[in-house]
Amino acid sequence: MTALPSSPEAEADAPAAPVVDFDTDPDGYRHWRLDVTADVATVTLAVDEDAGLVEGYALKLNSYDLGVDIELYDIVQRLRFEHPQVKAVVLTGGPERTFCAGANIRMLAQSSHAWKVNFCKFTNETRNAIEEAHESGQTWIAALNGTAAGGGYELALACDQIVLVDDGSSTVSLPEVPLLGVLPGTGGLTRVVDKRHVRRDRADLLATKAEGYRGATAVDWGLVDATVPRRRWDEEVDRLARAAADGSSRRPGTGIVLAPLERVEDGNTVTYPHITATMVPDERRVDIVVSGPTSPPPSHPVEQGVAYYPFAVARALDDLVLRLRTNQQQLGAWVFRTTGELDVLLEYDAQLGHSSEDPPDDWFLHETTQYLKRTLKRLDVTSRSLFAVIEPGSCFGGFLAELALACDRQYMLDGVYEDVDPDADPAVITMTASNDGRFPMGNGLSRLASRFWGHDDALVAIRARLGESLDARAAAEAGLVTTALDDLDLADELRMVLEERASLSPDALTGMEANLRFVGPESLETKIFGRLTAWQNWIFNRPNASGPDGALRRYGSGRRGSYDYGRT
Amino acid sequence: MTALPSSPEAEADAPAAPVVDFDTDPDGYRHWRLDVTADVATVTLAVDEDAGLVEGYALKLNSYDLGVDIELYDIVQRLRFEHPQVKAVVLTGGPERTFCAGANIRMLAQSSHAWKVNFCKFTNETRNAIEEAHESGQTWIAALNGTAAGGGYELALACDQIVLVDDGSSTVSLPEVPLLGVLPGTGGLTRVVDKRHVRRDRADLLATKAEGYRGATAVDWGLVDATVPRRRWDEEVDRLARAAADGSSRRPGTGIVLAPLERVEDGNTVTYPHITATMVPDERRVDIVVSGPTSPPPSHPVEQGVAYYPFAVARALDDLVLRLRTNQQQLGAWVFRTTGELDVLLEYDAQLGHSSEDPPDDWFLHETTQYLKRTLKRLDVTSRSLFAVIEPGSCFGGFLAELALACDRQYMLDGVYEDVDPDADPAVITMTASNDGRFPMGNGLSRLASRFWGHDDALVAIRARLGESLDARAAAEAGLVTTALDDLDLADELRMVLEERASLSPDALTGMEANLRFVGPESLETKIFGRLTAWQNWIFNRPNASGPDGALRRYGSGRRGSYDYGRT
Repeated sequence: MTALPSSPEAEADAPAAPVVDFDTDPDGYRHWRLDVTADVATVTLAVDEDAGLVEGYALKLNSYDLGVDIELYDIVQRLRFEHPQVKAVVLTGGPERTFCAGANIRMLAQSSHAWKVNFCKFTNETRNAIEEAHESGQTWIAALNGTAAGGGYELALACDQIVLVDDGSSTVSLPEVPLLGVLPGTGGLTRVVDKRHVRRDRADLLATKAEGYRGATAVDWGLVDATVPRRRWDEEVDRLARAAADGSSRRPGTGIVLAPLERVEDGNTVTYPHITATMVPDERRVDIVVSGPTSPPPSHPVEQGVAYYPFAVARALDDLVLRLRTNQQQLGAWVFRTTGELDVLLEYDAQLGHSSEDPPDDWFLHETTQYLKRTLKRLDVTSRSLFAVIEPGSCFGGFLAELALACDRQYMLDGVYEDVDPDADPAVITMTASNDGRFPMGNGLSRLASRFWGHDDALVAIRARLGESLDARAAAEAGLVTTALDDLDLADELRMVLEERASLSPDALTGMEANLRFVGPESLETKIFGRLTAWQNWIFNRPNASGPDGALRRYGSGRRGSYDYGRT
Repeated sequence: MTALPSSPEAEADAPAAPVVDFDTDPDGYRHWRLDVTADVATVTLAVDEDAGLVEGYALKLNSYDLGVDIELYDIVQRLRFEHPQVKAVVLTGGPERTFCAGANIRMLAQSSHAWKVNFCKFTNETRNAIEEAHESGQTWIAALNGTAAGGGYELALACDQIVLVDDGSSTVSLPEVPLLGVLPGTGGLTRVVDKRHVRRDRADLLATKAEGYRGATAVDWGLVDATVPRRRWDEEVDRLARAAADGSSRRPGTGIVLAPLERVEDGNTVTYPHITATMVPDERRVDIVVSGPTSPPPSHPVEQGVAYYPFAVARALDDLVLRLRTNQQQLGAWVFRTTGELDVLLEYDAQLGHSSEDPPDDWFLHETTQYLKRTLKRLDVTSRSLFAVIEPGSCFGGFLAELALACDRQYMLDGVYEDVDPDADPAVITMTASNDGRFPMGNGLSRLASRFWGHDDALVAIRARLGESLDARAAAEAGLVTTALDDLDLADELRMVLEERASLSPDALTGMEANLRFVGPESLETKIFGRLTAWQNWIFNRPNASGPDGALRRYGSGRRGSYDYGRT
């Protein structure tokens, strides 16, 4: 992972945001140790305080910045793909008596609003990935060897179990409100009441008491599952890990090697295996083309490792989404196209389907499906306008059709481009089981169910046509695309639509899309990305937090924030 | 309704916010006409553009400000209490070809952030009250005689049915994003997808197309239920109202008179029937005491009208909450106490209970219950820290105990105040059916179910003790109070707790409370107050909307907003 200084768009008094790479590997970790012994992994946070991603702060007390979190995400991925035999993961702190002090405050204080928001989003996504590992039979145990404060405790909250050392001083705490004038906004407030079921008045006490809680109170309120004296610590943590591993349904397999991602940057173009993204800065847009597979699926996908098509697409898309979100904030619209042989793609799609029927038998297919699910969820919470363009030669079917359904709008060509290839087959789109539940959104709905929310008849109708290739007219009638136009009209319409989108307020679009994308039920996950994050973003923008005399900016100066006490 | 200029705390370039009264009556309406004919009411918006609540804008095109909305809320209340025979309500516009242009933009542009947020909250609550009227057998029909734009269409979305005149030009639209750089934030984005079930890509089109939609598209997409040519307009609207009235289960009763509310202000004290509020500005706090009933419930509650105890409490609390929220933004903590005879109160509580079993037979009990429910919901979305103090002589039982459960924390005296009345009976708290489902929160959960979310055993245990008076120790064991302390400790603890609360960032507290108060499921209502409102508040704080060159501020100047196009 590297960070190069960049110039543009940081807020007035914030240091320039770096260009961020998300590539790393265990040899490059600065902040974590990963130890795997048989079916138990130990993940140890030991932050190098001098290795912050940006200049201007020291990562004291095992506090973190985006760079620390990038390594943690890499660990989550390696545990699932390189170490599939791991059934229990112990997450602990390296320094004596310290687990983690949360996000570094000086880092937050000096960061632009956009940086803070994007950092929190990635942090949240990594925690969701930790929670999802449980579905794959990997249980995460937060072994709090010392105080877990703020984001440190929020990280523990993302684990399946929390044990706290009982040493008379170590606590769990959420000191953001009293010390910083912001929220425990990376899931903390939501998880204490909705996951740990801490009573709301106790959660209120916790979130306003800087020093936090420990001992019997912490257990009684549900803040942790148990406290353990230091003399029995190692033994008890081992016992918990052993019990979790023994209870896992995961069956051992041989891992794949997560070789470095092949990414080539050339001017405004980034090329990955199967994905090419072209940035069009003048029009504040990125054109993204996903290519379908060129050969039929292998009999033994795991033998292809990172080259297995669905895995390779998930990995490239994951990296692209993260890089564009972090490094290309001016490019407000992403336009997705696909190209390739639909029939071949659908063979892969069918192969993935085997994973949901009997997961333990092919851990790799199962994990690849989970990886695609998580990556598609990233799109749902991406603050960019997403468009799909469905043309002749495209292969929007099955899991690639999820890209279209994740978009805010879908434009489909009715017929062919007469002046390009009058003899081409007209574009089609094909729904499969992938669109009907294999890749649920954060709210638990499939993207098809989400699209047809409140229209059960339409959902039933499309379910009867899974596997069928629908041309533009049929797709429009079925409700799968926003509009189907002939070739001259489509070009005009797209130009107008993208010009218009580029002219609108980016903030209003972010808020609009965040609301329209999540119909129906809510979950822990959507509450964190919706309610909690939106309130935190509001607070991040308020002078009481981020103004020159706000609590975030004054932290560490010995002076508390100076507040306008008007309630809003 | 009057508005007097006040001095404090408005943002730098915003006009001083007025002190707002919420009292009004049909004779005083400036903006609405209310016509009742047998079981159908017609509510006509005909805004007096020169009668804005604050100086500085004209309410053109039937646009509204808080004053217009205060009258609408009064209408909703009078229809339910003074005109219980009404089964269908036709909501329409007075001016030719104009329904309503939404919230007045110049008003928004000149208002402080806090004013905008509070105005939107009240607007949202009134729309929820309109939606709740349906549960009482009153169907609201939006008869759009002309264009319904922005908040005008959002108002229509709160009705049960929407018909739009088919005159070749009138549309429904949500132009906030393209014209103002803000959201359709009073429910619009949520209701189009979650209530009207408009497909999300179509909702995206609607919310980015300033001119809106009409005709077959509007019907096909579900934006309206029907379009009607002008020549058949009156006839068709009559027919719809007739059909709704004929289908209502509501049984006629004789209304009560909503005589003016008896409110006496004296320095820092406001006195209502049964409620006294004392403002303590130095400590940024309001002490609120609710007195219990002094005589047993009447055999025929409706004959007491506004004096019927549960109604009188609901009405006083409603007014107090609205006035404090709007006019006393510096007072960040509200401390609730009750005093009175618990036994007598519980007789009223039991009487209210009859309403849920057979609503049509006693419309007044049913409506009073609904009114209490709505008023308690106002507390849930109030951006103030709420505390309950439970002492000897209090009467926290049944619907008054909902006040305690609505609070962020509950402090209970264990024993008596030795130096006040050593012979007093110790404080008790009593749960009844009122706490177990009669007054659901916006998320559909009772406040007891919400308190014990994830702890079914505790919920089952307390359900076995409904009607039982629990002393401090029993209440603490049952989980009903945050802490039970003896008299010296309680006084110290309260002083420290309230001092501490008063020192914290008001923005962080608002965000924290908004998150902790709503565990578990979400509903249309909580999504609007949570996700949608939080995003809108964020956008209201962004320079792209509210800065000197932002879209809100530039609206009407002939220049569009100047945006920083970075996506966040």
